Amino acid sequence: MTPLLAVDLGGTKLVACLVSEGKVLSRVKVKTRVEDGPSGIAVQIAACCREALSGSGLALDGIAAVGVAVPGLVEHATGTVVQAPNLGWESFKAQAKLESLLGRPVVLENDVNAGLVGEWAYGSLKPFQGLQGRQVPLAALFVGTGVGGALMLGGSLVTGWSGVAGELGHMKVSEDGPKCGCGRRGCLEALASRSAIEKALGKKRGKLTSGRIAQLLDRKGSRKLKKAVSRAAHYLGVGVANIVTIFNPRAVVLGGGFMEALGERLLPDIMGSAREHSFAKGLRDCKVLLSALGDDAVPLGAAHLAAASLGNR
Amino acid sequence: MTPLLAVDLGGTKLVACLVSEGKVLSRVKVKTRVEDGPSGIAVQIAACCREALSGSGLALDGIAAVGVAVPGLVEHATGTVVQAPNLGWESFKAQAKLESLLGRPVVLENDVNAGLVGEWAYGSLKPFQGLQGRQVPLAALFVGTGVGGALMLGGSLVTGWSGVAGELGHMKVSEDGPKCGCGRRGCLEALASRSAIEKALGKKRGKLTSGRIAQLLDRKGSRKLKKAVSRAAHYLGVGVANIVTIFNPRAVVLGGGFMEALGERLLPDIMGSAREHSFAKGLRDCKVLLSALGDDAVPLGAAHLAAASLGNR
Repeated sequence: MTPLLAVDLGGTKLVACLVSEGKVLSRVKVKTRVEDGPSGIAVQIAACCREALSGSGLALDGIAAVGVAVPGLVEHATGTVVQAPNLGWESFKAQAKLESLLGRPVVLENDVNAGLVGEWAYGSLKPFQGLQGRQVPLAALFVGTGVGGALMLGGSLVTGWSGVAGELGHMKVSEDGPKCGCGRRGCLEALASRSAIEKALGKKRGKLTSGRIAQLLDRKGSRKLKKAVSRAAHYLGVGVANIVTIFNPRAVVLGGGFMEALGERLLPDIMGSAREHSFAKGLRDCKVLLSALGDDAVPLGAAHLAAASLGNR
Repeated sequence: MTPLLAVDLGGTKLVACLVSEGKVLSRVKVKTRVEDGPSGIAVQIAACCREALSGSGLALDGIAAVGVAVPGLVEHATGTVVQAPNLGWESFKAQAKLESLLGRPVVLENDVNAGLVGEWAYGSLKPFQGLQGRQVPLAALFVGTGVGGALMLGGSLVTGWSGVAGELGHMKVSEDGPKCGCGRRGCLEALASRSAIEKALGKKRGKLTSGRIAQLLDRKGSRKLKKAVSRAAHYLGVGVANIVTIFNPRAVVLGGGFMEALGERLLPDIMGSAREHSFAKGLRDCKVLLSALGDDAVPLGAAHLAAASLGNR
């Protein structure tokens, strides 16, 4: 199969990968220059894509397509990123811009949607691809700086009427709780994310990595930290429970940097809380799995979607 | 079109209707004899179906099919009601039993699923049938003794992997709250249903009808009652918000006896709470509508599903 390029564009870092057959062949990682504005970031993406190719012996015209995962809302029909607050993008026609810079077909997708597709195509959810004759429902909960979610039914992403379905981080799971980035209170994200833990510890945003949290816990950690982490596990369990109650998925994959660093440790508590808060039948029939692909879930999913879209052009 | 029979089987009452072209032509309503056991109820259903025909000049063999809506979990492949606690049914092969009693094809469906289909085929959701080329997501929240829910995508019910998707009454919306019938705390049903209000007022279950609650409110009502009703509206808004955040539907229909009696009065408060708790974009793109069919939503949906299934036999 012809190789693809895949970009995982975040508010702090930008990763461009050369991908073939569901494997990352090379990877370039830089700090996102949000200060350069939408077009500046597009230029940066194009430069990283070229760099990911260097050393591969491939030129851009040897690439089938470029999949770009963005932390925001994508309108596929017009190739527009409707909003991506962390990038400062609003109604940015990213597809056309990137296609003109790269000269290859570009496919945009929301990053957590891409992550779910990556796990489905090559990771933890792969076993649920082959279930014939049923519309298999699957879900993803990606926990990092924030909490993102995605839903799939019968192999297709469930995007909802406005493209915002699966915003699992903003389901309300508590009456009050700390204020969320979205301005409301009681969202899952405000109680169970890396930033929720930073906030509970009075740290500045971005100061505490998930890996650092894991290290601190290894050295026993402070009471405050343990309390915040255990609160996160509790509410992630409530989140899983509500997904199970509402969508009754065959499996839920837990990914993102926070789960990568702490997933093994937190899974028993998450499941305990999920059991406490969901219908026995729904949860019994649902596998709750950690990501198998880690950071590669998003770019591999973006590449998979880009390859799949070529057939539809 | 050949007429159909439709049954709305509840834990307290049983309604059998003769239906043609989305209209109820006759209706028989009796108290469900749960004490007679599963087969006894089946016999009662068959008797009511025959009574619904009397006076129509039709015999059973003039009926295309019988749609039966049950308050429980249906396994379509085997025609089994897996569980329906209010009926005392467990793993009851209701389809075969009823087909042998009636001599006509019988189609089972969960009652709230049937209600959503009824509103979609003939009621408030009908305008969203005709949206071409899109997988239109729709949702129903039926509030009565309990709270039931259902989801639809592209004209098909979303039943989930185990058939229990859309159990919106059991999403957790509060940290504590009164105990729910399911044994857990904080479920929407335990905070926003007729029984939740009875419980808040210290009344015995079944003592306060939704119509009576409306009457009492017309006469100003007690402070306790007003508080319980306003709590219900608040949490129904949280429920709508979470449905919007997770499923991003084009429309949500609010039905059931409680909404029939109090919907007009409560809708502004429900919407206020929904706005407070959901993403602006998702809610802006979602119509929240009261049921247009009232009690007929469930039998009309059951009849519609029965007619549709004939093509698939």
